[in-house]
Amino acid sequence: MSPTEQFVAKTSFNVRYAETDAMGIVHHASYIVYFEEGRSSYIRQRGSSYADMERSGYYLAVSEVQATYLKPAKYDQHITVCTWLEQVRSRTLTFGYEILDEATNDIFVRGISKHICLDREGNIAKIPTKWRTQLD
Amino acid sequence: MSPTEQFVAKTSFNVRYAETDAMGIVHHASYIVYFEEGRSSYIRQRGSSYADMERSGYYLAVSEVQATYLKPAKYDQHITVCTWLEQVRSRTLTFGYEILDEATNDIFVRGISKHICLDREGNIAKIPTKWRTQLD
Amino acid sequence: MSPTEQFVAKTSFNVRYAETDAMGIVHHASYIVYFEEGRSSYIRQRGSSYADMERSGYYLAVSEVQATYLKPAKYDQHITVCTWLEQVRSRTLTFGYEILDEATNDIFVRGISKHICLDREGNIAKIPTKWRTQLD
Amino acid sequence: MSPTEQFVAKTSFNVRYAETDAMGIVHHASYIVYFEEGRSSYIRQRGSSYADMERSGYYLAVSEVQATYLKPAKYDQHITVCTWLEQVRSRTLTFGYEILDEATNDIFVRGISKHICLDREGNIAKIPTKWRTQLD
Repeated sequence: MSPTEQFVAKTSFNVRYAETDAMGIVHHASYIVYFEEGRSSYIRQRGSSYADMERSGYYLAVSEVQATYLKPAKYDQHITVCTWLEQVRSRTLTFGYEILDEATNDIFVRGISKHICLDREGNIAKIPTKWRTQLD
Repeated sequence: MSPTEQFVAKTSFNVRYAETDAMGIVHHASYIVYFEEGRSSYIRQRGSSYADMERSGYYLAVSEVQATYLKPAKYDQHITVCTWLEQVRSRTLTFGYEILDEATNDIFVRGISKHICLDREGNIAKIPTKWRTQLD
Repeated sequence: MSPTEQFVAKTSFNVRYAETDAMGIVHHASYIVYFEEGRSSYIRQRGSSYADMERSGYYLAVSEVQATYLKPAKYDQHITVCTWLEQVRSRTLTFGYEILDEATNDIFVRGISKHICLDREGNIAKIPTKWRTQLD
Repeated sequence: MSPTEQFVAKTSFNVRYAETDAMGIVHHASYIVYFEEGRSSYIRQRGSSYADMERSGYYLAVSEVQATYLKPAKYDQHITVCTWLEQVRSRTLTFGYEILDEATNDIFVRGISKHICLDREGNIAKIPTKWRTQLD
């Protein structure tokens, strides 16, 4: 499913110096943190909060991450993380991401993250209907 | 000098999950990165850019950091970094910081960072007048 | 190709507190940094150094990362990163990884990273024979 | 008190690429994480574990950090963190640190961290005698 057919959350911020590395560009692990920030923003923009979800006793543990690096971003660059829900199943979720510079349309990274719903004891659980409805 | 007597840059963002630790709160080293983000924002709000300063051949190396932790911030909390210039000398700068929740007035961390101006060869240099004027 | 048929570099260290998150476990982006540490160690154990490779004017930019999370590691746990070369082509390399607790045989994460060789100008370059021979 | 008059824990490791920044050197916040790793190692070398201390219901929250940066460390450099206990009081602890290259005697950073003992409810607590004895 293409990101244009569904709700896409956008969140923008400047690259921090700490997120760069000795190659003078954003370190590849920093984008995994940007994906997470995109995910948090997606949930906030759906009127909810992942912090509330955790307080209610459910966790979205990361089961897989994949990122393809197309072009390097640099310190202080204003970047945008686009985040959408690729797939929802009863116990799992997949988010899709594209990180770009909206001014130039340069795409830095594309990727996905897969999540599995856990309860407080760490057991696999069905995503509560309340959360499933809010996220989708 | 008190922050209220001079230009104070404010920058706000949500705490990222990656910035928390197993105590359930923001890890103390994350605030040092927030100071840096406050500093970048201070320079941007003065109409300049630390990236440009580096491109012109001058670096503000960190020579000292000090932080006092008053109250823990948590995941997704909307926090504000207040940043001001405490002192400018010919070759050094000191920035002051206060990180707080503007909604509750809870202050999380206060601190300072000291910087020394270096040229491309890594030698101590006078801060160019252009940059000194823009920062102060 | 299976890791047992070729040179596998092992590097072990304790999980740092800063690498955990509010779930009480190692944050998923930290493992991407562990992969990198495995890669650095692989190159060191082959008698070389990625720092030397960069000094000679060649960079191994990350073009893709993939990680599958099987079990969470915790603070202070002594973990081992196994790293091997999955594939070498003239301009690209793929490393494979497995992160585990050698005492319990618990496997935390498996993954790969793909790299493309760049020269100082950022152009795609053939991996110099010297480096190709040392890595393989 | 000088580090030579008391127990000094040494822990050595190579600088990771992710810990560097666009200046080509170790990012200043990374040393705060190295301090923490020094502290963890100090406790391990005293025959204990901070993970056990947390499991017993006591936390050493960071109340202050100070670092002075003398010389930059670089990627892959083998560095050593020396850690000692500067002061122990009934409810607080201060650790001292020196990070250096033992091969060249280059000192990169010196600093301290102050800690306050908290119980599970987050209240200030006396450091249990068991832990005080093991740490000192």
